[in-house]
Amino acid sequence: MAVTIPGSYRDLFAKRAFAHLGTVMADGSPQVTPVWCDLDGSYIRINTAKGRVKDRNMRRNKKVALAIIDPDNAYRYLAVHGEVAEITEQGADAHIDLLTKKYLGKDKYPFRQPGEVRVIYKIRPEKISTMG
Amino acid sequence: MAVTIPGSYRDLFAKRAFAHLGTVMADGSPQVTPVWCDLDGSYIRINTAKGRVKDRNMRRNKKVALAIIDPDNAYRYLAVHGEVAEITEQGADAHIDLLTKKYLGKDKYPFRQPGEVRVIYKIRPEKISTMG
Repeated sequence: MAVTIPGSYRDLFAKRAFAHLGTVMADGSPQVTPVWCDLDGSYIRINTAKGRVKDRNMRRNKKVALAIIDPDNAYRYLAVHGEVAEITEQGADAHIDLLTKKYLGKDKYPFRQPGEVRVIYKIRPEKISTMG
Repeated sequence: MAVTIPGSYRDLFAKRAFAHLGTVMADGSPQVTPVWCDLDGSYIRINTAKGRVKDRNMRRNKKVALAIIDPDNAYRYLAVHGEVAEITEQGADAHIDLLTKKYLGKDKYPFRQPGEVRVIYKIRPEKISTMG
């Protein structure tokens, strides 16, 4: 069941706060990667390149977890259990540029690799806990 | 197979860098929590209270993942896949005080709850990737 991110923690998405994304590998072991993120209404969006480990993990197993620490107070954070509700390449190039603006203050994503296909993952929060 | 944390990334453990610990829930979904950590030779140690979700997860499934971002450069990090090699209450009170010294500069862990039993988890790194 979808839940809403508390209004008092939505400020984290306006800051340059990384999400640490947890996914599950094919062998059932966990994987954690720092990622950029933003909000799209009630969804948390992340963006990666097709074929990366977290991309393969999220296509196989839609269950994910995220923790987002407040960069101004490491003892204030949001932890989310959720499910990947949508995976799309549509708008993913514009979205990585949007995240680049947020995190680096630049207009164009500077780390693009030749042939890279960007993908958006829309994550529906299902359980939320907060600290601080 | 155990692997060694590269010497060029061991400085992260001297900083007040949080590890984001990934574990797996009973239903196979992932869980991510920020934790304090340190090194004990080739092991990464974390410390939590008995009965917490991550405690139960690590007793059920020894496979874990960790990502540690450099607090001085968010684009430099260490990602670890590993296995919980040892779970012990022995020395766990002294260890949480040691971590308190590292992270808060205080001698005694200030967040202790009545009846709380502290536990050390020694994690053997099995696969390491680095960025930055």
